Amino acid sequence: MAEKKKLRESEDAEPEQIVDPWKVVTTSDKGVDYEKLIRQFGSERIDEAMLQRFEAVTGHKPHRFLRRGIFFSHRELNLILDLYEAKKPFFLYTGRGPSSSSMHVGHLIPFIFTKWLQDVFDVPLVVQMTDDEKFLWRELETPDVAQELAYQNAKDIISCGFHKDKTFIFSNIDYITSSPAFYKNMLKVEKLVTFNQVRGIFGFNESDAIGKISFPAIQATPSFSNSFPEIFGDASDVPCLIPCAIDQDPYFRMTRDVAPKLGYLKPALIHSTFFPALQGARTKMSASDKTSSIFLTDSQEDIKNKINKYAFSGGGATEKEHRENGGDCETDISYQYLSFFLEDDERLAYIKKEYSSGRMMTGELKKELIVILQSIIGDIQKKRKAVTDDLRRHYMTARKLNHKA
Amino acid sequence: MAEKKKLRESEDAEPEQIVDPWKVVTTSDKGVDYEKLIRQFGSERIDEAMLQRFEAVTGHKPHRFLRRGIFFSHRELNLILDLYEAKKPFFLYTGRGPSSSSMHVGHLIPFIFTKWLQDVFDVPLVVQMTDDEKFLWRELETPDVAQELAYQNAKDIISCGFHKDKTFIFSNIDYITSSPAFYKNMLKVEKLVTFNQVRGIFGFNESDAIGKISFPAIQATPSFSNSFPEIFGDASDVPCLIPCAIDQDPYFRMTRDVAPKLGYLKPALIHSTFFPALQGARTKMSASDKTSSIFLTDSQEDIKNKINKYAFSGGGATEKEHRENGGDCETDISYQYLSFFLEDDERLAYIKKEYSSGRMMTGELKKELIVILQSIIGDIQKKRKAVTDDLRRHYMTARKLNHKA
Repeated sequence: MAEKKKLRESEDAEPEQIVDPWKVVTTSDKGVDYEKLIRQFGSERIDEAMLQRFEAVTGHKPHRFLRRGIFFSHRELNLILDLYEAKKPFFLYTGRGPSSSSMHVGHLIPFIFTKWLQDVFDVPLVVQMTDDEKFLWRELETPDVAQELAYQNAKDIISCGFHKDKTFIFSNIDYITSSPAFYKNMLKVEKLVTFNQVRGIFGFNESDAIGKISFPAIQATPSFSNSFPEIFGDASDVPCLIPCAIDQDPYFRMTRDVAPKLGYLKPALIHSTFFPALQGARTKMSASDKTSSIFLTDSQEDIKNKINKYAFSGGGATEKEHRENGGDCETDISYQYLSFFLEDDERLAYIKKEYSSGRMMTGELKKELIVILQSIIGDIQKKRKAVTDDLRRHYMTARKLNHKA
Repeated sequence: MAEKKKLRESEDAEPEQIVDPWKVVTTSDKGVDYEKLIRQFGSERIDEAMLQRFEAVTGHKPHRFLRRGIFFSHRELNLILDLYEAKKPFFLYTGRGPSSSSMHVGHLIPFIFTKWLQDVFDVPLVVQMTDDEKFLWRELETPDVAQELAYQNAKDIISCGFHKDKTFIFSNIDYITSSPAFYKNMLKVEKLVTFNQVRGIFGFNESDAIGKISFPAIQATPSFSNSFPEIFGDASDVPCLIPCAIDQDPYFRMTRDVAPKLGYLKPALIHSTFFPALQGARTKMSASDKTSSIFLTDSQEDIKNKINKYAFSGGGATEKEHRENGGDCETDISYQYLSFFLEDDERLAYIKKEYSSGRMMTGELKKELIVILQSIIGDIQKKRKAVTDDLRRHYMTARKLNHKA
């Protein structure tokens, strides 16, 4: 509700934008205005002081996603750092809507970051695969199809390197139909949230299916540690940190609103920007358009060809023009992708300088990206080959997780 | 939707009535007009021809509830008789919302009738205990409390004499959290029904909790035999007959609307009138008002006292007046209850004649009822003592049921 109101208040001069879990719409040519989103959603910016504290508390240099403002917003991340400092337990929760049998690099962002957080904090992680949601929203013919996609995607997620003994990945259909504790928390949330509220938060309307209308309770439920008695015990209330793209925040604003009414802790959040499509930074990538992104199933050759062919260039139209005017890193997708995937800050700064000045050509820039993406994707593909059905089932079995807490 | 429209059309002279699973409201002094309800709901009257066919096909004299118009309405009962005639399988589905730790005689009506149908047809029965609904609707503090009420009520239901090897009683919370097949059918229904539809059918509004709004899918799901793979197999589509009070019809109108879209069979229905409160025939009994009904936990003495003290009398104010004018069987609750529980048609006709004429006094009429209710309740209490937790668990275990089909 708050966000809608603010949208209306700012209708004067500024362009409008709507960001929710199903759409990212903006009237601005520059794409999503993330500073404005922080104001709309009422979250907090991850500022320099937060990064310094993060490093001081964890002893780890902040991840490049943090250093570069890719994870840019949070809710109560400070409390999580307090817990870490006091050696008190917490856990990570992230998720994925299994929308096609292969994930793309945009889907990797939260998982790359979450894996890093798991390593830094040494905490358990739960990953929700919302197969039920994908059946309810999309034209998947049966829940079984959605469930099978969840299993396939789980293998991709495992290939990101999550700790075998600290990670529980679950299909909603599987876990709801085997966990009374989880379903009971769903019921508790469903009892407290009204149609008016989900209409305000998610933009649902009266023609929406009742399955959609009640689904937000299912995404809220993993925020509460007692939804997972096998991991945390029956009566636990272990704090939760949720790394996710900012479009998922509506679910967790709702969750944070409901939590105190249930006597549960509010989950903390850390939000990322969107990963741009090859064709440009205006919106999110689409799993249904194979040319809009690099998929985990793409060959080394595919990666090279797609970047060369589709990655929107901020360079000059001709070599002469480029040499004279330089390239525009703000719009250049290859540069943008490098800012996600190139670890070396100095190298990135060097590339930016060279490309902006026109000394580095688009082809060279793309080559730099191709090598890195080929390496990252190749590595995940190698790991995925080793993910047997047995190993997937191991990750997908609710069990005590091995962690400090 | 159809019912609302009809309500409006008939706003001229006739009194209005609203009947849904949570309320029975009528502006008529005579209580619910069941003939009008048949027109509103679009169901069919159980007529003499249907009763004759029932007897011809099953070889059983119709139950007193059928003979006396207590089960008075149906949807496609003829198809069920066709199946029985052709020796083809079908199953029974009924349910209960566990609202207090003891059931009252009004709650018994569908179970007494369903037990009789199970005997006559020799078919499996599933009984849904909607503990989740009762948590969502009522001020029960936790789902656990609702679940425990379901277990207690299940013992009462078992005491009605349902066949041990042909009956599956389930708590929604238990079965949803152990049956993927059931949950997947829930999702399928939830995907097809909109908020507008449940608003039209159930009168939900925008301030209702999302759990309420999606609940109707849960009550629809047991109508489909493949929701119970343990009983009927994975790919089954065994036809279903639902005996229930007419106020539950909205759920199954919705179910019958959805079924063809899923490629499933529509359930058939057989509807009862409402059982009157001791104080009068205007509405249903209330489990929360201990003086409004006879409970299964009432002692022989309680039964006697409650009937003598509370059962609304249609008799004269004084003995003289009664002898002169006679009693009114239409409003006399003791007579009404006898019409539910006294098996002997001739005896009932005799009582009616004697009471109406003023020859039989209210005290004698009540005595007749007291003896019968003491016997019925006493019998159930005796049976209930034999219902161990193990036996309850047997009935509540999803398993292959022993039946002809």
